[in-house]
Amino acid sequence: MKINLKEDVLSDQNLVANRNRGIFKQHKILVINLMSSPGAGKTTLLEETIKSLKDEFRIAVIEGDLATELDSERLRSLGIKTIQINTVGGCHLDARMIAKTIPKFDLKSIDILFIENIGNLVCPSGYDLGQDYKVVVLSVPEGNDKIPKYPVMFRKTDITIINKIDLLPYLSFNLEEAKRDLEKINPKAQLKVLSAQTGIGMDSWLSWIKDAYYKCLAL
Amino acid sequence: MKINLKEDVLSDQNLVANRNRGIFKQHKILVINLMSSPGAGKTTLLEETIKSLKDEFRIAVIEGDLATELDSERLRSLGIKTIQINTVGGCHLDARMIAKTIPKFDLKSIDILFIENIGNLVCPSGYDLGQDYKVVVLSVPEGNDKIPKYPVMFRKTDITIINKIDLLPYLSFNLEEAKRDLEKINPKAQLKVLSAQTGIGMDSWLSWIKDAYYKCLAL
Repeated sequence: MKINLKEDVLSDQNLVANRNRGIFKQHKILVINLMSSPGAGKTTLLEETIKSLKDEFRIAVIEGDLATELDSERLRSLGIKTIQINTVGGCHLDARMIAKTIPKFDLKSIDILFIENIGNLVCPSGYDLGQDYKVVVLSVPEGNDKIPKYPVMFRKTDITIINKIDLLPYLSFNLEEAKRDLEKINPKAQLKVLSAQTGIGMDSWLSWIKDAYYKCLAL
Repeated sequence: MKINLKEDVLSDQNLVANRNRGIFKQHKILVINLMSSPGAGKTTLLEETIKSLKDEFRIAVIEGDLATELDSERLRSLGIKTIQINTVGGCHLDARMIAKTIPKFDLKSIDILFIENIGNLVCPSGYDLGQDYKVVVLSVPEGNDKIPKYPVMFRKTDITIINKIDLLPYLSFNLEEAKRDLEKINPKAQLKVLSAQTGIGMDSWLSWIKDAYYKCLAL
């Protein structure tokens, strides 16, 4: 008899990620890990999502950046508890960084925790932080060819959001091709097409979050 | 007496980078390492640059991607010798990868070699490939806050190109703030403000390349 243990099951990072997940589950917190290239609109999406949900849910944010607290300041101005992680050059968040922020939150008073990862379409995809869902934001100005060109990110995420669709008239982004490529790379992934800035398509994303939260409560 | 040798002077990667640089210098080839986030417009900038310069200079390209040959195909259609490096998940090019492509080129018939790095505003900045100049492209849709938020990239580059300025009317990108932040982070860096797609501002970038080539010839 031969027992194969996948290396990553035993790796330190994944142990920490699973410990994080256990703590979040115990407190019935829905945790969403938000990833994208720099400037795809993660922070604006978060701002608009928080504005729409904050009367119904208690929301907190872990904000990852190489440097500065610019994004945290944007979110704190909405009255949201936000912990900043500065990676000082590191290209992704990891489970240990998340673990270190946990004592800074009052977990009993959080329903939904968003983790805004470092702006990077490569590195963050491989790191489990202990989240329930991984979401990647691709913005129209980046071009739809980024799906086949950065397949690892799209393969490992539960939801792909195509953001800034208000810019479609000014740019050559092929939405049908994007859907086909995503279907090929990750047939299980859900696709949300929206503009966080103008509000088009936000309903479907907000509904999904609510459903995910109530599913998380029921577990 | 105490002699400090910086570790990176001796590191293997930098030895390879300097060997690459020596080979390129010997053949009087101007080498430009082009970096940016995914979708900032590196390939379009390259296409338009090549179209404008290819009658005057013999141009070649090393094209870095995680997966696909999509960008190489775009450049080869211009009749340009292009070698594709697929990093299969790796978030930057390194000097060894460049060294492996060198035998595939006829160096005697190249004046300018562009290296299009992986779309990533973090990882590529730390890696010397043996280039003469590092150029970073930041596009208007990404937002000017990316300069303070990703300072390492902007600190280590010779030229910052702000691309897609034809989109300025539709987006909130503060050009004055970008100039001030760049001046703070890297006062020696040159700034080029252009739209590769519409051609605005391309003249200054093309003149810079010509000057850099003749400077490289004279050395």
